[in-house]
Amino acid sequence: MDNPFFTKKRSIKLHDICDILGVKKLSKNVSFSGISNLIEAKKNDLSFFSSKKYLSDLVNSNSIYIITNENYKKFIPKNKIPLFVNNVLLSVSNVTNYIYPNSLNDDFDQNLSILKKKNKYKKLIFGKNVLIGKKVKIGSNCLIGHNTIIESNVVIGNNCTIGSNVIIKNTLVGNSVKVLDGAIIGKKGFGFFPNDKSNIRYPQIGMVIIKNNVEIGCNNTIDRGSMSNTVIGENTYLDNQVHIAHNVKIGRNCIITGQVGFAGSSIIGDKVMIGGQAGISGHIKVGNNVQIGGGSGIIKNIPDNCKVMGYPAKDIRTFLRDNK
Amino acid sequence: MDNPFFTKKRSIKLHDICDILGVKKLSKNVSFSGISNLIEAKKNDLSFFSSKKYLSDLVNSNSIYIITNENYKKFIPKNKIPLFVNNVLLSVSNVTNYIYPNSLNDDFDQNLSILKKKNKYKKLIFGKNVLIGKKVKIGSNCLIGHNTIIESNVVIGNNCTIGSNVIIKNTLVGNSVKVLDGAIIGKKGFGFFPNDKSNIRYPQIGMVIIKNNVEIGCNNTIDRGSMSNTVIGENTYLDNQVHIAHNVKIGRNCIITGQVGFAGSSIIGDKVMIGGQAGISGHIKVGNNVQIGGGSGIIKNIPDNCKVMGYPAKDIRTFLRDNK
Amino acid sequence: MDNPFFTKKRSIKLHDICDILGVKKLSKNVSFSGISNLIEAKKNDLSFFSSKKYLSDLVNSNSIYIITNENYKKFIPKNKIPLFVNNVLLSVSNVTNYIYPNSLNDDFDQNLSILKKKNKYKKLIFGKNVLIGKKVKIGSNCLIGHNTIIESNVVIGNNCTIGSNVIIKNTLVGNSVKVLDGAIIGKKGFGFFPNDKSNIRYPQIGMVIIKNNVEIGCNNTIDRGSMSNTVIGENTYLDNQVHIAHNVKIGRNCIITGQVGFAGSSIIGDKVMIGGQAGISGHIKVGNNVQIGGGSGIIKNIPDNCKVMGYPAKDIRTFLRDNK
Repeated sequence: MDNPFFTKKRSIKLHDICDILGVKKLSKNVSFSGISNLIEAKKNDLSFFSSKKYLSDLVNSNSIYIITNENYKKFIPKNKIPLFVNNVLLSVSNVTNYIYPNSLNDDFDQNLSILKKKNKYKKLIFGKNVLIGKKVKIGSNCLIGHNTIIESNVVIGNNCTIGSNVIIKNTLVGNSVKVLDGAIIGKKGFGFFPNDKSNIRYPQIGMVIIKNNVEIGCNNTIDRGSMSNTVIGENTYLDNQVHIAHNVKIGRNCIITGQVGFAGSSIIGDKVMIGGQAGISGHIKVGNNVQIGGGSGIIKNIPDNCKVMGYPAKDIRTFLRDNK
Repeated sequence: MDNPFFTKKRSIKLHDICDILGVKKLSKNVSFSGISNLIEAKKNDLSFFSSKKYLSDLVNSNSIYIITNENYKKFIPKNKIPLFVNNVLLSVSNVTNYIYPNSLNDDFDQNLSILKKKNKYKKLIFGKNVLIGKKVKIGSNCLIGHNTIIESNVVIGNNCTIGSNVIIKNTLVGNSVKVLDGAIIGKKGFGFFPNDKSNIRYPQIGMVIIKNNVEIGCNNTIDRGSMSNTVIGENTYLDNQVHIAHNVKIGRNCIITGQVGFAGSSIIGDKVMIGGQAGISGHIKVGNNVQIGGGSGIIKNIPDNCKVMGYPAKDIRTFLRDNK
Repeated sequence: MDNPFFTKKRSIKLHDICDILGVKKLSKNVSFSGISNLIEAKKNDLSFFSSKKYLSDLVNSNSIYIITNENYKKFIPKNKIPLFVNNVLLSVSNVTNYIYPNSLNDDFDQNLSILKKKNKYKKLIFGKNVLIGKKVKIGSNCLIGHNTIIESNVVIGNNCTIGSNVIIKNTLVGNSVKVLDGAIIGKKGFGFFPNDKSNIRYPQIGMVIIKNNVEIGCNNTIDRGSMSNTVIGENTYLDNQVHIAHNVKIGRNCIITGQVGFAGSSIIGDKVMIGGQAGISGHIKVGNNVQIGGGSGIIKNIPDNCKVMGYPAKDIRTFLRDNK
């Protein structure tokens, strides 16, 4: 889906990228349309390779110019052109920040105005002190509660109900979605390079995509993606005080109960049920029809149709037997 | 206690109920005063029986007309009249929604107005942008902080202190209660029938009852009951980021520390102390004078006077010995 | 650092203190400058001794007059003058409340006004409905988001970014600090004497000190200190929904991920990394360069350079081996 939140530099020239990377300029000065991860990159996108575990992605990627480290030289296919740097992720961060100049900015939206009776939205019912940014799209028959903030470029579908004291930014919301009071959606993820003096923020050019019929509970925090998007699948319900970190993708028809937390980049299947206070580590894959008991800690992938519980989680029958 | 939040249909006729349930009309067309669970139902209330574990409640219930499933036919006492349906809870949901037509509605209150100096409340001190609904009752000597929302029909006792950015709805608050900043009290519980296309919301006609001298911490979320009430007992203190689901009943003089979570319908005794981040599963009974260590997971009932810790929780001495 | 938040009684006479304590008046009626714990007390501060584990603090304390219990008589050095009471902490509470008459008050600030364009602050950019107290200091080049509340006497350094719906009170904020949406900083800690009728609040005269380059995540709750301060060290980053109780001191360059909780008075070293949902018990000491896995429960001190995981936490290799 098109991302209306981060303005991309119009002209991205290889020679300028080489300057940023501290790499010797190549003879040909091609143009890129953007930067993306290996899987999502198109032919004229710049990409990067930072770990052997993405080797098959590298081989299958449409991208030609690859930011990487000289140690990975032998893995680079012949039809690709490597740009060697010392610290791949830091270099990618610098380049991304060059391509998306406002990608590090997470300041409050200064273009908000108080929503007035004569607004342009169809059959919109709204409370006191609602603040709306520029170019916000809202479908018909929506409700927006008191003191809620919808920042610029946010898209909201039809028949949605947004509660009071909600903040939504960098987010596309589907139809018939409910966002309950106090939820904060779309802020930058907790991603940065630790640095003794002052940590270096990683660019966050992703957004949050909330599909149809989703419910987001009170005081939830859902961060937007960094190079990818954070996605909540159709008809998935989240209870109160749930935290979802950047790049997490949750499937359809899931039930996520109170105080559950997801670390960055995990992928959750369809019809997954997660009990209260369970935690899912980063970069984990949970299959379809999985049931996770309350309080569990998920630190490795869970195949389809499993019922697990415990910290770390194991088969629920084993857990209950071991803890009789 | 009387519930001023959900308007009940004036005339509830058995024949109309039969239509909703898809049950053949009985010859006599009696009138009901409402619907309730087996324990709380009065003689002219409709009730329901959905599981053998409520058998003694069924036998002792004052209710005569019982929505149930044909499989439970043999359990129905002779002095009761069963109404057989396929899915008891779904049918109860439909009937409840018929009796309380706004019980599925959890939209923001559109009847709020900004509290002004010349308000009708006695010795009330209040901040900027306080929004108050219709028919709100507030005792004398209260304080209400900035940007706080008190929805229609809420009752607040004497000498209460409500912080800033608080939202209170469907709630009766006693005397000398403190509600700290950012707490959200009285929204619908996380109860629904999962459905592939779009989950079906369970009616939530209960409220939150906060007894005298209670303190509710910052960013707490306390959901109202579904068929019963959520209750916080006298002089019980809740720390920050506590989550309390629908129908939970907490006793007197309890101390609940930060980030503790309660799943639905659990009952907690008096003088219970719960350490940080502990979780209590649904439909659990915790006795009086129980101490629960931080981080514990309570998945079965705990008798009076126990000290427990662990996940799942066990006797605290055993836990500490096992984990030396 | 000087605490601008709690007004201290000008004249604190020993004879008045004796009255409060119910202690026979000593012949000499000296004056105190305040009350403090044994370590931080200066020569003319009153102090207190309530447990043998503070014995070395007692011996080394600059304080002369010590509120204590007769059971500790033998531990009191000859150069100190004990004031014997039954319940040391309750007596300290009463005396503190006498010396700092507004230390039990945690009501909303009634001196706020809406920030206007012609404000006195240098290059300050701010949103709608920002409420600012009296004597607030804000450095140059700061941003403050919509609906945010900065209570009286708060100090904010240069180049800070405060989000929307934030509440800051009793806090000193350094330079280049980011506070994200919905954070609540500086309310009283969860400290009190349980009492059957109505719990007795412990005075909370500490503040929150946030050092340079810190980032505070969305919906965090950070309580101020009671007799000491709560401190977040330079360049430490906190993710969303983190809870920090009173008196906690976190070092420099720490990374604290989502939903982590700290009970009161714990001390965390520098460069500590803590995974999501981990909990740190009260009065714990965590060394430098410690890594704590997600979901861990820390119930005893952790020396420098350890990597731990589990509940209770143990060496991470042992944890992973035991849970294969």
